[in-house]
Amino acid sequence: MSPWHLSRRRLFGLAGAGAALAGAGAAAGYGLSGAPAADGVVAFRGEHQAGIVTPAQDRLHFVALDLTSTDRAAVADLLRRWTAAAERMTTGRETAVGGAIPANRYAAPADTGEALGLPAASLTLTFGVGPGFFDKLGIADRRPPQLAGFPRFQGDRLDPARSGGDLCIQACADDPQVAVHAVRNLVRDGFGVTEVRWSQLGFGRTSSTSTGQATPRNLFGFKDGTNNLKAEEPDLLAQHVWVGDEGPDWLRGGSYLVARRIRMHIETWDRSGLDEQEQIIGRDKGEGAPLTGTGEFDLADLTATGPSGPVIPDDSHIRLASAEANGGARMLRRGYNFVDGTDGRGHLDAGLFFVAFVRDPLTQYVPMQRRLARSDALSEYLEHNGSAVFAVPPGLAEGDDHWGRALLA
Amino acid sequence: MSPWHLSRRRLFGLAGAGAALAGAGAAAGYGLSGAPAADGVVAFRGEHQAGIVTPAQDRLHFVALDLTSTDRAAVADLLRRWTAAAERMTTGRETAVGGAIPANRYAAPADTGEALGLPAASLTLTFGVGPGFFDKLGIADRRPPQLAGFPRFQGDRLDPARSGGDLCIQACADDPQVAVHAVRNLVRDGFGVTEVRWSQLGFGRTSSTSTGQATPRNLFGFKDGTNNLKAEEPDLLAQHVWVGDEGPDWLRGGSYLVARRIRMHIETWDRSGLDEQEQIIGRDKGEGAPLTGTGEFDLADLTATGPSGPVIPDDSHIRLASAEANGGARMLRRGYNFVDGTDGRGHLDAGLFFVAFVRDPLTQYVPMQRRLARSDALSEYLEHNGSAVFAVPPGLAEGDDHWGRALLA
Repeated sequence: MSPWHLSRRRLFGLAGAGAALAGAGAAAGYGLSGAPAADGVVAFRGEHQAGIVTPAQDRLHFVALDLTSTDRAAVADLLRRWTAAAERMTTGRETAVGGAIPANRYAAPADTGEALGLPAASLTLTFGVGPGFFDKLGIADRRPPQLAGFPRFQGDRLDPARSGGDLCIQACADDPQVAVHAVRNLVRDGFGVTEVRWSQLGFGRTSSTSTGQATPRNLFGFKDGTNNLKAEEPDLLAQHVWVGDEGPDWLRGGSYLVARRIRMHIETWDRSGLDEQEQIIGRDKGEGAPLTGTGEFDLADLTATGPSGPVIPDDSHIRLASAEANGGARMLRRGYNFVDGTDGRGHLDAGLFFVAFVRDPLTQYVPMQRRLARSDALSEYLEHNGSAVFAVPPGLAEGDDHWGRALLA
Repeated sequence: MSPWHLSRRRLFGLAGAGAALAGAGAAAGYGLSGAPAADGVVAFRGEHQAGIVTPAQDRLHFVALDLTSTDRAAVADLLRRWTAAAERMTTGRETAVGGAIPANRYAAPADTGEALGLPAASLTLTFGVGPGFFDKLGIADRRPPQLAGFPRFQGDRLDPARSGGDLCIQACADDPQVAVHAVRNLVRDGFGVTEVRWSQLGFGRTSSTSTGQATPRNLFGFKDGTNNLKAEEPDLLAQHVWVGDEGPDWLRGGSYLVARRIRMHIETWDRSGLDEQEQIIGRDKGEGAPLTGTGEFDLADLTATGPSGPVIPDDSHIRLASAEANGGARMLRRGYNFVDGTDGRGHLDAGLFFVAFVRDPLTQYVPMQRRLARSDALSEYLEHNGSAVFAVPPGLAEGDDHWGRALLA
């Protein structure tokens, strides 16, 4: 039986939940492909966790949690409950009505209810573990060397309250209410074992993860993620995203998630001229074409020179972030724009919540970020104030009860 | 000519902007009714400002600004520029490409560009003035008595950094990127005259403003706004929302906007039983029916009693917020859910950004909130930490250059 097979029992349960449940219609289209069905359900189980190469949704709620318990059995039990809840919420949410409206009226509802009647909205939930997870649970010997804190990069102004975390949950959906509902209910399940360390809402994905998606724009007004790795490139994903034989058993087929909260000094940026902006990025603003081309997907010619030097400047962002400048290293980016109120000095607190999935953060992210922090003309407009890295285990096959089983065995 | 008439010149300008401009298609459906056209453009001009009784969109970016200038002419000039920019952004955004990609490549673009290629997304921009606007501009004698600070309500824990403001802009849209883009560009236009005091993003509208909309749920998991005033009830709107002859000339046909940032203690709420939750609200959680009925829109019978007293308890939210308990006073609610990271103590900072439009805040909001703060069983789960009130001038007729003209004349 395919791991994505929708059992008769589940269908029956859905029918029994009644016509009021919008999720029922959605679940009927539960996709076999791992891609979202037309009705907005992304398969929860598969070779890899959903939310990495599945098409980037437009809304994010990301939460980092700390363990408040060092009891391995309690943590395993939580992961098991999280897995069951995540599967329920991302697929047919067939028990949502029963969870929100319990038969025992004097009991606290199992589900908080604010997503009642909403469709699954392409919800994906992606889990990871941070460096501290291993120390607190007495399994530091199982921590892969790639899961280390980052060195301090030039210009970093990291806020500890927005950095790190023993665990993470990335919730992405077409509807923020659905993403927030999922995180809230998982956080609630974690009481006594985990507590929220930081959380970030995002909107307007800043890259595409499949060739069918248009390239969105970041808050500098430029298309972002044109050269992103795509779901349709499995060989490149195997090379750059999925942990292979070099990693521990429990992480093969998984990945590493790098998160950086990057405040953008949009007021300063907005005062710079169009030409200056384009020289800094290395692309034109309207079309998103490299300065050596005319179409967005034209390959950048990093060797082209003009009267005043390289057409794509030496300190431009796309040159310094290119695979060519980074020993061939590439990343799968999956970030979001954010606006979090104000900075208390009369400006909006806005920027990019950078999320990237890589096979090895130490060889793919660290050298590139060191180069960007030192030389990128764009750095003047950026402030990295949050940072975290997590190991993201592979997906679950049918019957697997949680994605931490091999890790905690 | 109808004030909502789409001129040939504007159509011509749109066509000239080129096929890349998604807004062009949208503008062709620029509605005559004031309601959003199928393609997502809400008319900017009309008897009332858009964003009050026009159908509530699902995303909000609200910003309160302080005047940094006391120069009335400079403020009038800003309001004029804001009006032009707002009309451009909410309608066909026909100059967006030209604004983001200026002909002079060495000039800073007039538009920041992150909404390039996005549709109008039902964007509405609603402007208001707070109490300080009048003091700073030396026109305190024009401030209506209704535009006063609120008394302190029991339990208020107001943060000055999240309260007040000399001006406000409420941006609502189907797409947060569009709302954020609008606020950002207006804030940018205001440099030297205004600065951001506070700003709030919201998602998942918490009430309906027209009978065609389904009632959404707040973060307590209950349907919210079932009894809201609706666009289809003009007599009730005239009675409860629009300022009439009692107000100053510049405000007739306008309204007052009450904003309250209400943190919800969702963790405590989530531990309470279904029955307790329903007794506190006065409605059932699944359907949203009053405890005396079975359907969401059944009228609540506040006189019904059961074995242990009133079926809808004396301290229930819907009783204390009812028109019956408040001398007939009603409000047009237009709030949003929010999640703003964490509270630093392991919990999500989540709640309701309450927005209501009323004809007189002193008689419609203040007594009701005093009653709720003192007696509502729900208050135990709430913390009001932001508060503001603004006077919202009427809409603009064709040819009016800004909504502050009568006020500043």
